[in-house]
Amino acid sequence: MSMTLAEKILAAHAGRERVEPGQLLEVSVDFCLGNDITAPIAIQAFREAGVDKVFDPERIALIPDHFVPNKDIASAMQVKMLRDFAREQGIPHYYEVGRMGIEHALLPEQGLVLPGDVVIGADSHTCTYGALGAFATGVGSTDLAAAMVLGTTWFKVPASIKFVYHGRRKPWVGGKDLILHTIGQIGVDGARYMAMEFTGPVVQDLPMSHRMTMSNMAIEAGAKVGLIEPDQITRDYVDGRAQRSYVFHQSDPDARYEAVYDWDVSSLDPMVALPHLPENVKPVTELPEISIDQVVIGSCTNGRLDDLREAAAVLKGHKVSDHVRCIIIPATQRIYRQAMQEGLLEIFLEANAAVSTPTCGPCLGGHMGILAQGERAVATTNRNFVGRMGHPESEVYLSSPAVAAASAVLGRIAHPEEVH
Amino acid sequence: MSMTLAEKILAAHAGRERVEPGQLLEVSVDFCLGNDITAPIAIQAFREAGVDKVFDPERIALIPDHFVPNKDIASAMQVKMLRDFAREQGIPHYYEVGRMGIEHALLPEQGLVLPGDVVIGADSHTCTYGALGAFATGVGSTDLAAAMVLGTTWFKVPASIKFVYHGRRKPWVGGKDLILHTIGQIGVDGARYMAMEFTGPVVQDLPMSHRMTMSNMAIEAGAKVGLIEPDQITRDYVDGRAQRSYVFHQSDPDARYEAVYDWDVSSLDPMVALPHLPENVKPVTELPEISIDQVVIGSCTNGRLDDLREAAAVLKGHKVSDHVRCIIIPATQRIYRQAMQEGLLEIFLEANAAVSTPTCGPCLGGHMGILAQGERAVATTNRNFVGRMGHPESEVYLSSPAVAAASAVLGRIAHPEEVH
Repeated sequence: MSMTLAEKILAAHAGRERVEPGQLLEVSVDFCLGNDITAPIAIQAFREAGVDKVFDPERIALIPDHFVPNKDIASAMQVKMLRDFAREQGIPHYYEVGRMGIEHALLPEQGLVLPGDVVIGADSHTCTYGALGAFATGVGSTDLAAAMVLGTTWFKVPASIKFVYHGRRKPWVGGKDLILHTIGQIGVDGARYMAMEFTGPVVQDLPMSHRMTMSNMAIEAGAKVGLIEPDQITRDYVDGRAQRSYVFHQSDPDARYEAVYDWDVSSLDPMVALPHLPENVKPVTELPEISIDQVVIGSCTNGRLDDLREAAAVLKGHKVSDHVRCIIIPATQRIYRQAMQEGLLEIFLEANAAVSTPTCGPCLGGHMGILAQGERAVATTNRNFVGRMGHPESEVYLSSPAVAAASAVLGRIAHPEEVH
Repeated sequence: MSMTLAEKILAAHAGRERVEPGQLLEVSVDFCLGNDITAPIAIQAFREAGVDKVFDPERIALIPDHFVPNKDIASAMQVKMLRDFAREQGIPHYYEVGRMGIEHALLPEQGLVLPGDVVIGADSHTCTYGALGAFATGVGSTDLAAAMVLGTTWFKVPASIKFVYHGRRKPWVGGKDLILHTIGQIGVDGARYMAMEFTGPVVQDLPMSHRMTMSNMAIEAGAKVGLIEPDQITRDYVDGRAQRSYVFHQSDPDARYEAVYDWDVSSLDPMVALPHLPENVKPVTELPEISIDQVVIGSCTNGRLDDLREAAAVLKGHKVSDHVRCIIIPATQRIYRQAMQEGLLEIFLEANAAVSTPTCGPCLGGHMGILAQGERAVATTNRNFVGRMGHPESEVYLSSPAVAAASAVLGRIAHPEEVH
């Protein structure tokens, strides 16, 4: 009996030959993670369970990334809980300021989440690792606590839904535009509790960074996971990083999908999600003049080296508009350093952009660029809900790094070709 | 009749031939400034006064530096007040994120505060510009509002107190150690409402950055101003930057001082101010083992290029201790860029330090590295009051960049020679 990629990974982790959508399964967990918002709650639940030891300290990451370097006493106390717990339990994958990064950029970079894995994280964008062919999903803090004790968790097997992208991408169209287009088509609940599977020649041609951007935003369509079949690009990314062995799973040719979408994206323009939902998507070419106050380039969605290269290609030789703050946040310490060594930071500083040490920061309204009343930002982040980046009367427009950079230069939402 | 440097500057700005300590004077103001904490109050007072226009938009700087990039909605609203006011009044010296810096590093760098000036700022460390031979002092926000309207302010002429430093500095001893030694000797109210004048061959030999560190902390001894007679080093610093003409004033040889301190600093070791006052000073050589959790290198006291060079000289080839967060904050965008171009950032990143975009941040417990309960920091900042950098039960030790960097490497307060 044939299975989808998602079903195969779950079957392998449940010790079953086959599984079907709707089944409840207990599965082994290859890796789990929490951050400075969620892990303290998980640690508290762990304490209350009266357990002494985590199931395997090597299989847990505690990553303070949302409010670091600490924005206030409360966040400092939260991080202290992670640090103390990591020392007590001998958890090696605790990442301190100066060695850290945004969790969903850091863990793939470190080779800690791998193809074929089941990964759970107490953060909704854990689905990012679907780009590696892992069944990776966000869970609540108490689910994380249980997995830290047991090394297992339970799932209802999701139905799968397939997205096939073909055609030839226009210049400046990438993973962010594809996923915004997708969410625009199916809506923010269009894949509720389903496994999205991104496929077709356009996806097969995408570099890993763009694939991660797509999988990262699967949750914005309500999906449980957002998977991409591993291939040679996956292997090239993983080899040299992997800290464990890994397995490539593929969907069977006759696997069953709840729905299949097939799109020729040849005419797709760079896309922007307007306030206040990621499904409010329009091509940048169809927008009226929308002046902006801030640009944020970073986050677990678009803070990788390729994203910074894309922004630099647009910003090079230009200046950020006088009325705009352009805040660029490399997602990890390593990316920050690579960007410096490649000369990208020089381009950013020459353009009058501010370059921050890694943090989730403004994406969730945490710190490092919060919006005032009436302000408008273009951001490469993943959510533009009401008040997401600050004041309830502020607005966030989601885009690719290229559109964000062009908008920073022109002081209004712009197509990269207007600048480049 | 002879006068001190402070008296001469005030006399020139009051249109008098001579002035004496204790006199109340109305003086013209060459430049005034406010930041994201203080300027909103000044702007509100300006509004309440029913005035339309500031006295001279070129003579006012509005610098959001304490909580930027904005840490929260409240700080974003504060900065918005500055931005809107600057646009309305045509104030050119408003510095946006990406072009900004910590006010007391930025204004000298931009050539906006100059020898012979009277400068008032709604920030206590405005006294920094005394290093240029300017009468510069911190005032309240309503004093700033009045000066923004009138272009004048009033002072009681302070008595002067002279500090003569001679001898040969040991390696790793600089301006920070000299001023900590001074405050340790006279106490935090030892120069209350007086003009400190730093002089002697050791000061004459100090680069401008170290002079600014000394003048910056005059307020920590309660002084009104902390002055250094301008000389060739001053001229070399100012020329090429000055946006107005400037005047060198000198104290008369027989000027009257309330007190004169004369110190041979040949045997002075690097100094550390222990919690919770800048006067609790001890040589680093006499400290017991004091483990630390965080190091901050930056602030208006020690965030200049020379400070970063000093830190890099110590950090080069070493790693920050696993248990320490080392946060390095170049004081201005220009310094950040120069530090990158010189390879200092590469040294910092290789050492696992975090490099932040310019902000006052942790110095005042604002953001970007707040301490949790029980944590201990070594900081190149200026104040170590209870709870200054976070939790009321945290501790701050003040030092030079070299001592801070050595402490980051060893995880305890250390002499640079232990690492270098």
